[in-house]
Amino acid sequence: MVEDNNTAIGRRFEIFTQIMIVLSLVSFSVETLPNISAELRTNLFWFEAVTVFIFTVEYIARVAVADSKVRYIFSFFGMVDLLAILPFYLATGLDLRSVRAFRLLRLVRILKLVRYSAASQRFYRAFIIAKEELTLFLFASLIILYLAGVGIYYFENPVQPEAFSSIFHSLWWAVATLTTVGYGDIYPITVGGKIFTFFILIIGLGVVSIPAGMVASALSKAREMED
Amino acid sequence: MVEDNNTAIGRRFEIFTQIMIVLSLVSFSVETLPNISAELRTNLFWFEAVTVFIFTVEYIARVAVADSKVRYIFSFFGMVDLLAILPFYLATGLDLRSVRAFRLLRLVRILKLVRYSAASQRFYRAFIIAKEELTLFLFASLIILYLAGVGIYYFENPVQPEAFSSIFHSLWWAVATLTTVGYGDIYPITVGGKIFTFFILIIGLGVVSIPAGMVASALSKAREMED
Amino acid sequence: MVEDNNTAIGRRFEIFTQIMIVLSLVSFSVETLPNISAELRTNLFWFEAVTVFIFTVEYIARVAVADSKVRYIFSFFGMVDLLAILPFYLATGLDLRSVRAFRLLRLVRILKLVRYSAASQRFYRAFIIAKEELTLFLFASLIILYLAGVGIYYFENPVQPEAFSSIFHSLWWAVATLTTVGYGDIYPITVGGKIFTFFILIIGLGVVSIPAGMVASALSKAREMED
Amino acid sequence: MVEDNNTAIGRRFEIFTQIMIVLSLVSFSVETLPNISAELRTNLFWFEAVTVFIFTVEYIARVAVADSKVRYIFSFFGMVDLLAILPFYLATGLDLRSVRAFRLLRLVRILKLVRYSAASQRFYRAFIIAKEELTLFLFASLIILYLAGVGIYYFENPVQPEAFSSIFHSLWWAVATLTTVGYGDIYPITVGGKIFTFFILIIGLGVVSIPAGMVASALSKAREMED
Repeated sequence: MVEDNNTAIGRRFEIFTQIMIVLSLVSFSVETLPNISAELRTNLFWFEAVTVFIFTVEYIARVAVADSKVRYIFSFFGMVDLLAILPFYLATGLDLRSVRAFRLLRLVRILKLVRYSAASQRFYRAFIIAKEELTLFLFASLIILYLAGVGIYYFENPVQPEAFSSIFHSLWWAVATLTTVGYGDIYPITVGGKIFTFFILIIGLGVVSIPAGMVASALSKAREMED
Repeated sequence: MVEDNNTAIGRRFEIFTQIMIVLSLVSFSVETLPNISAELRTNLFWFEAVTVFIFTVEYIARVAVADSKVRYIFSFFGMVDLLAILPFYLATGLDLRSVRAFRLLRLVRILKLVRYSAASQRFYRAFIIAKEELTLFLFASLIILYLAGVGIYYFENPVQPEAFSSIFHSLWWAVATLTTVGYGDIYPITVGGKIFTFFILIIGLGVVSIPAGMVASALSKAREMED
Repeated sequence: MVEDNNTAIGRRFEIFTQIMIVLSLVSFSVETLPNISAELRTNLFWFEAVTVFIFTVEYIARVAVADSKVRYIFSFFGMVDLLAILPFYLATGLDLRSVRAFRLLRLVRILKLVRYSAASQRFYRAFIIAKEELTLFLFASLIILYLAGVGIYYFENPVQPEAFSSIFHSLWWAVATLTTVGYGDIYPITVGGKIFTFFILIIGLGVVSIPAGMVASALSKAREMED
Repeated sequence: MVEDNNTAIGRRFEIFTQIMIVLSLVSFSVETLPNISAELRTNLFWFEAVTVFIFTVEYIARVAVADSKVRYIFSFFGMVDLLAILPFYLATGLDLRSVRAFRLLRLVRILKLVRYSAASQRFYRAFIIAKEELTLFLFASLIILYLAGVGIYYFENPVQPEAFSSIFHSLWWAVATLTTVGYGDIYPITVGGKIFTFFILIIGLGVVSIPAGMVASALSKAREMED
């Protein structure tokens, strides 16, 4: 039942597991809310206990039905399944937040759903088609980010020694600017810095935004190849 | 006349109705302005009364000429037409803002205009072509948003307990950042948080911006299929 | 000489005119700087006088060599040429800023350069190819902007009556958000407003960013058609 | 060994050089951190001395093995190699920041890696294919930026004489807005300025974002041409 998602009961079980994963992630998020009542916290703990129990049963069942138990345990999804339940047993009562974060590994299991879909396969092929250019552009993006950081440092550091106190601080500006996020926590105020920003944006925006268009056209190419 | 937009008078009536809808939406917006004079408010009320009267006459005419009256009344556009005028009769003098918002349903009627255009049909076909990938990317976007929210929560919560007070607050940051809106109301200040933002942007920007390119290339594909 | 840009002297004259236009725009911009010295202001005035003199001579020459003087004077570029110099004679000493702005019409003359290039022709054909979809998306963008404005007004107005004081104020938020500019002067603070922003961004970003991809693929189509 | 990257030792030497370049850029960035200890500064100096020594040895070796010594010394990469080490000998003890910045030239040497890759060649061909349109759009972008700057100046200068004090200041707003960075340091507050921003964004966003899509589709065209 846990292995075969072609039977009706197998599919229903899979959907049930997916819903449990999403619910357990919601409960994980609710726990981080400040000022939640002691009662809600207790309920969340019991809900967590129930989900871990279900996932533990599922894990044991999977080990039991696996042709090669050892291979399943050390497979990628076997490790994920184990790491997603283990922290509960280790950390109960200890309130080790960072350990509890392992629960996020359950997200990885949701990815199983997508793994075999036609769209994923096509996306994977598109990725292979555009791999070389993507590497080139990632590389070029890093160089442009670095040059943007160094350049703005020379223009702004003398005037804004707090905001642009080193090349590393300037790199944060470069990231926020070339991705066009532009939080507004740090920006050039000198004339030279503003003109530099203009030129780096003209060059940099292309470099940063071309990869998305490239993957899109590789995807439509991959779709044609199927026909 | 209300049904046939192939005759000259039918087309003219349709254009007149569209203009009335746009004007009634403008009047709806003007009403929300603070400190408008009592005189303007009265004028807006009378203008609203006139448009509702016209739409009521149109509605009755449509019911009258429909082959099957019951089917028209319970059709999608029949319901929209009714819901767009009903609130006026119910809410006059009661100032129920939320009820008055039903007037926005008139926007739906504008969509009638687009429904049969060649461009819409093509867009619909492009949507069908790219449906699977769009679902995949919507799914992937949600997962990346969630992971971005959780990650930044761990980095920023200890330092900015106000801004990043829970995973839900962090999700708001994730939405504003990965769409590159970047209001600047909330942003990372720790070194770890900034480096995390850099990596999540490199991965996330692609995921969020690829769908648009995909629809664009699917559209040009759909156009070729027509030829 | 002023008409024929195939001869060496004709081309040189054209380039000289273009440079004069750019220089006169720079001088126009410099004039707006606050606290410029009286001396610089005088120099700028004399530079302006010189450029207007050159453009006047050119205008008279063009009228003189035109086959049909009347047709040139009332042609689009004839009007532009006249309107670009007339304000100087009318406004000298009157400091009528709005009249001086007519000088910007000189920009239109720069467009002459592009008019006959292969790239412009191709872009024009691409525009024709994608015209219907572009109209559809412009239309859809306006509807989404309006709905975004109305929606956020209902969520944020009770809490931020200053920032979101009417649907018109909310539309400004919608413009800044859906174009992902995100100045940060106005943003949602309620939970409902933030969730609404999330959904409107998922739908709206596509609608706003698809047209660019569409024109790009129409351009590559137009290029293929040439071959 | 320094010339031939086909032999095993040649490739290993090349990778070693690349790593040295990256490390020397990291050390360059660390030096700009404020409040670094005297001890770390000394270590960075010695590290710099070591890298310069290695690069000097490499440079001498390259001159020695070159068929035409003069041609290598005056070649582009010969100049880069020399300029990347010379500042150290000139500036030691002088703390001439601007001279030390010549070390950034080492980045140029990293570019050697990409020069002959298939992806670069393809990108170069894509660039040639789309050259005319890119020039047109760069030109159009500059005109739109200028018009946006002038327009917003007329709307906002009377109300915000500080932020929009001249057309040059307004151009900074135009750059930050049309690239959708939107820092939030400068934005329109008048109704006219906001409506103007809306229209300039509708026109301008396309102009600024189309080139990226164009290069992407030219890239996929270039890939097809290879097949």
